[in-house]
Amino acid sequence: MIKAGVLGATGAVGQRFVEFLQNHPWFELSTLAASERSAGKPYAEATKWRLSTPLNREVSEMEVINVMDIKNIDADIVFSALPSDVAYAVELKYAEEGFVVASNASAHRMEDDVPLVIPEVNKEHLELIDIQKDKRKWNGCIVTNPNCSTIMMTMALKPLMRFGIRRVYVATMQAVSGAGYTGVPSMAILDNIIPFIAGEERKMETEPLKILGELENERIVNANISISASCHRVPVLDGHTEAIWVEFDDVVEPDDVMEKFESFDHGLQDLPTLPENSIMIHKDEDRPQPRLDRDLGRGMTVSVGRIRKSENGIKFIVLGHNTVRGAAGASVLNAELMVDMGIVKS
Amino acid sequence: MIKAGVLGATGAVGQRFVEFLQNHPWFELSTLAASERSAGKPYAEATKWRLSTPLNREVSEMEVINVMDIKNIDADIVFSALPSDVAYAVELKYAEEGFVVASNASAHRMEDDVPLVIPEVNKEHLELIDIQKDKRKWNGCIVTNPNCSTIMMTMALKPLMRFGIRRVYVATMQAVSGAGYTGVPSMAILDNIIPFIAGEERKMETEPLKILGELENERIVNANISISASCHRVPVLDGHTEAIWVEFDDVVEPDDVMEKFESFDHGLQDLPTLPENSIMIHKDEDRPQPRLDRDLGRGMTVSVGRIRKSENGIKFIVLGHNTVRGAAGASVLNAELMVDMGIVKS
Amino acid sequence: MIKAGVLGATGAVGQRFVEFLQNHPWFELSTLAASERSAGKPYAEATKWRLSTPLNREVSEMEVINVMDIKNIDADIVFSALPSDVAYAVELKYAEEGFVVASNASAHRMEDDVPLVIPEVNKEHLELIDIQKDKRKWNGCIVTNPNCSTIMMTMALKPLMRFGIRRVYVATMQAVSGAGYTGVPSMAILDNIIPFIAGEERKMETEPLKILGELENERIVNANISISASCHRVPVLDGHTEAIWVEFDDVVEPDDVMEKFESFDHGLQDLPTLPENSIMIHKDEDRPQPRLDRDLGRGMTVSVGRIRKSENGIKFIVLGHNTVRGAAGASVLNAELMVDMGIVKS
Amino acid sequence: MIKAGVLGATGAVGQRFVEFLQNHPWFELSTLAASERSAGKPYAEATKWRLSTPLNREVSEMEVINVMDIKNIDADIVFSALPSDVAYAVELKYAEEGFVVASNASAHRMEDDVPLVIPEVNKEHLELIDIQKDKRKWNGCIVTNPNCSTIMMTMALKPLMRFGIRRVYVATMQAVSGAGYTGVPSMAILDNIIPFIAGEERKMETEPLKILGELENERIVNANISISASCHRVPVLDGHTEAIWVEFDDVVEPDDVMEKFESFDHGLQDLPTLPENSIMIHKDEDRPQPRLDRDLGRGMTVSVGRIRKSENGIKFIVLGHNTVRGAAGASVLNAELMVDMGIVKS
Repeated sequence: MIKAGVLGATGAVGQRFVEFLQNHPWFELSTLAASERSAGKPYAEATKWRLSTPLNREVSEMEVINVMDIKNIDADIVFSALPSDVAYAVELKYAEEGFVVASNASAHRMEDDVPLVIPEVNKEHLELIDIQKDKRKWNGCIVTNPNCSTIMMTMALKPLMRFGIRRVYVATMQAVSGAGYTGVPSMAILDNIIPFIAGEERKMETEPLKILGELENERIVNANISISASCHRVPVLDGHTEAIWVEFDDVVEPDDVMEKFESFDHGLQDLPTLPENSIMIHKDEDRPQPRLDRDLGRGMTVSVGRIRKSENGIKFIVLGHNTVRGAAGASVLNAELMVDMGIVKS
Repeated sequence: MIKAGVLGATGAVGQRFVEFLQNHPWFELSTLAASERSAGKPYAEATKWRLSTPLNREVSEMEVINVMDIKNIDADIVFSALPSDVAYAVELKYAEEGFVVASNASAHRMEDDVPLVIPEVNKEHLELIDIQKDKRKWNGCIVTNPNCSTIMMTMALKPLMRFGIRRVYVATMQAVSGAGYTGVPSMAILDNIIPFIAGEERKMETEPLKILGELENERIVNANISISASCHRVPVLDGHTEAIWVEFDDVVEPDDVMEKFESFDHGLQDLPTLPENSIMIHKDEDRPQPRLDRDLGRGMTVSVGRIRKSENGIKFIVLGHNTVRGAAGASVLNAELMVDMGIVKS
Repeated sequence: MIKAGVLGATGAVGQRFVEFLQNHPWFELSTLAASERSAGKPYAEATKWRLSTPLNREVSEMEVINVMDIKNIDADIVFSALPSDVAYAVELKYAEEGFVVASNASAHRMEDDVPLVIPEVNKEHLELIDIQKDKRKWNGCIVTNPNCSTIMMTMALKPLMRFGIRRVYVATMQAVSGAGYTGVPSMAILDNIIPFIAGEERKMETEPLKILGELENERIVNANISISASCHRVPVLDGHTEAIWVEFDDVVEPDDVMEKFESFDHGLQDLPTLPENSIMIHKDEDRPQPRLDRDLGRGMTVSVGRIRKSENGIKFIVLGHNTVRGAAGASVLNAELMVDMGIVKS
Repeated sequence: MIKAGVLGATGAVGQRFVEFLQNHPWFELSTLAASERSAGKPYAEATKWRLSTPLNREVSEMEVINVMDIKNIDADIVFSALPSDVAYAVELKYAEEGFVVASNASAHRMEDDVPLVIPEVNKEHLELIDIQKDKRKWNGCIVTNPNCSTIMMTMALKPLMRFGIRRVYVATMQAVSGAGYTGVPSMAILDNIIPFIAGEERKMETEPLKILGELENERIVNANISISASCHRVPVLDGHTEAIWVEFDDVVEPDDVMEKFESFDHGLQDLPTLPENSIMIHKDEDRPQPRLDRDLGRGMTVSVGRIRKSENGIKFIVLGHNTVRGAAGASVLNAELMVDMGIVKS
């Protein structure tokens, strides 16, 4: 078993990490770290568990460690669910100290030598790890996964790259869980839409260019795509829905797109968190829907539907579980891939 | 006072017509017509009143007439809230019999000689009425207003026409009231999004071309714009929110768009249902929001916000009250304009 | 395997029956019956499947039989999810023809010789079956389960009977699924409460008296309890929540009640649908909550929480899944008990 | 005009006070006070205005005063919307300094010499003010209004006092606005019920006894009623709904209750915030409903419906707007009554 720690274990994404790791076949939850306020308390006391999966008794009794006490951290890999204001410095520190950091935070995502990875899309970018270690003189390293909305969209764009993607328009309808447990007050969202999510549009417009880019001469050359995003919060608990338009170099029909989705081969070995279908195509005209489809593949399957002709390309709907496929599950899947590739070892 | 009838008075839009007309300064509610099933009953018994504005006592006691008994209809103008399956034939019949029909139904919208009008956008299209009467040998006529989602978007596009609009992408987040009182079951929409509304995308992609077209030689030449829509139902009671991208011939900055909205002059006289501001610009980054902004201008103001640069043009948010500005209020405003122009008389 | 048919298989409760039976260890789904309109179609075409559990392929292809063609029904037991207007006559017919009818409909519940059963509460009432068969000269029989709200409350009252229950007050907060898929329009319930559910209060005030009654001399003597209910619909998908006050003959403290719940022994053998805990006690002061607790015991566990002193007795909260424990699951559990007792055989 | 200040002006209830006072015919908004953090800022900058009524420009520009700088407060009366942890000490200070304090906070409600008043119910309790001033050697005084849920219930109980109320059971379904803007996260309440509101049941069980008590020999003798409450949060924006059972000394029929409600005379002069009907009786079996009825009488009317026989008395539904009739509107109405009685002067 590989010893795994969670940094920021008491928050909403932190709880999802614990959920994934407490019964994981490869990882053993060895350390729960959080802010000084939680340090010294049993986990069940330091956080109010809010997931429907029950918390294992032994995990509930684990003592929470102060995330700053790196000397006390016992782990082969640490998962970071740290809030963005502290993630930058703390993750650096852990990597310097020799830890593999699998981070869901945005702090280091866009750095040249930090892989920003979705296993089904760009596993070859993990080669940056060696470059990163060399350059920074680290034993450890930082590997990141993209923003939740970016992951779902990019997984759907990847199989279409051969048609020459020129331009993408995307409008999101994002679940409240994306903002954390107290992020969206009920007074703000009942019978309402909030057409703004801080920083989200920028992430969706930049991260996919790196993820879909090519590794050439030890550097990533960004994909030459223009993306424009409009992001909106809706009264849905979990599951982000995205309306996407793609303009291509080629003349592309809906059937061509369908065929590419169906024949897409991600080339991965079996991994514990990898779903049977990374992308599922829905044929009913009113699907996918977040409440009905977010839990497909235990939350790791991305749904695509309503593939239809647009004036100038193709439009379709993409949906995924934002706190599973879009956050904790994304980091865990990256970590499993690193174990499979021998980058992480016990 | 001008005598006004309502066809389909017992449905959701029919109730909104009654709400507008029961205390109107120019119109007097003279006839309530509905299907045979309701005929002969007092209005308050034929329909369950669901609006928060109380129903006037005298209106509640009016006897509902069978919509097929045209001989019994006493009106200078009739407003049609008929369901689409019967609207086509019944509206024809009324126009033949000499009535001015102001219709919210889609049946006749796209016919060459039928005006499809938003007063602030294309009042000059009412000239089609004479052509229609000539061609069809009618004393009456049919005048239509657009689909709810189309109205809000087209009002926002009109002031930008001078920049040369090439292409429009629009994603809607539409309120449940748009489907009628029983249209969307709570089981379908609580904690959910339905990414499909039958017929809606086609309407949004075609109606604006006619509305923004030019009347030349007694015909409308459609605007040369390419529109692509993706329509979605959200758990909101009233108010459609739309994320819109516009690509222009000119190079256009957000400030140019703002300036055009602020200086737009619709050229209308004061009309009872015309709001002080047909378009209101919001400067807060998280507005407009349906619950907070749908009732501006007593539901007749269209809100625009988040005007920002897109990769290839401009993107912004548009919001309006779908059953007021987008349905009954639209027809009533058209009728007021026709009164003002002398087309409808008592 | 015992052959099981479903009457009214295409409705919301009918789908739940199919969900329970399609992978059941004892029952084999042999017949799907519905109205003439559905007859002759494959099941997947006759109904729009709305549950998240996928429908088995072979079930989706089964031809739906007209419920009136009793001669074509092949089953050892039939489960009735018939709408109340047809349930009375059709269930009689099936019992006359020799079928065991396990009914979720209310039509026959209160008849003297028809058992109204919750296995954990009054399994001994199944003795009425012999009396029913004798009296009505039937080979078949009708066995019923209570109304959804009644089941949860009565399960919580049973362990407290020894204190001498005098009077019960209950206010319900009921999920929209209780009214069927199209029963509650979203326009009716978003941002709202409807303080009325037709017929529900009467059922809650009468059914428990029979269920908690004693079988004496081949008749049930109703329990001598006075119940007063107030029933309300809330914007929740699944799970009825009930605030209950109980006045006792004895002086009773919260700890006494807790002790009775914890030591309650329903005396049942293991049955496939019987949950590990028929009643689960929650100690957190803000539980049970429908979204978090409705799926406990795969929807068959009833949650009890907030046991506290009232001025004149005890008050507490009860919660259960209304379409599982409160409908299809209740009938299936009754059927399993009848199999266990040898009343139903293959 | 009487100069009015608001203490705690930046919170949710504080905003409601400002809404009431900014266009009030008798009061002139003279001071906005809040915590040190807001002091010195213009009001519109110190708080994010969240009500649909627009904020007056002059109010938006008023400088917020530190609530501790009592010397700078210019007011004939101050309204307290202070959070409970600071209300106790700060309100004492203001009363000592000579201000009339009309408080919505619970801190002083149950003190012997502090009036807890609903104008329609117990205006005579204002006589306690003289006793309070005497006893405490103050020029100022503290007058309080009850908890939101208490107000609605007590207004409905008052007309029934002549039948001899013995016992009351009440289950509430309370809107999220009662917890303040950020009080209930959307993650907590979407598709859910929370069957617990801290401190609420105790308030509902004790405050009415004082309000319905008699002033005898300069003291209030509590009403001899036993009340048991169960309080629940529901996904509704505004408007608390309460299911109430009342047991009487007399034998009482629904018609008797109806008659008492309809003939109830509160004996008040016309006051600006007093609604035309303090209690409105609904005859439709599915009313009152919060979304449809909370705004009756501009939020100051309490709705009563479904008056029906219970096993042991009468049961009915009560509904009122919790942040208007149940908070700011309650304090303002008390203040208007004090102006009318000459207790507050300019």
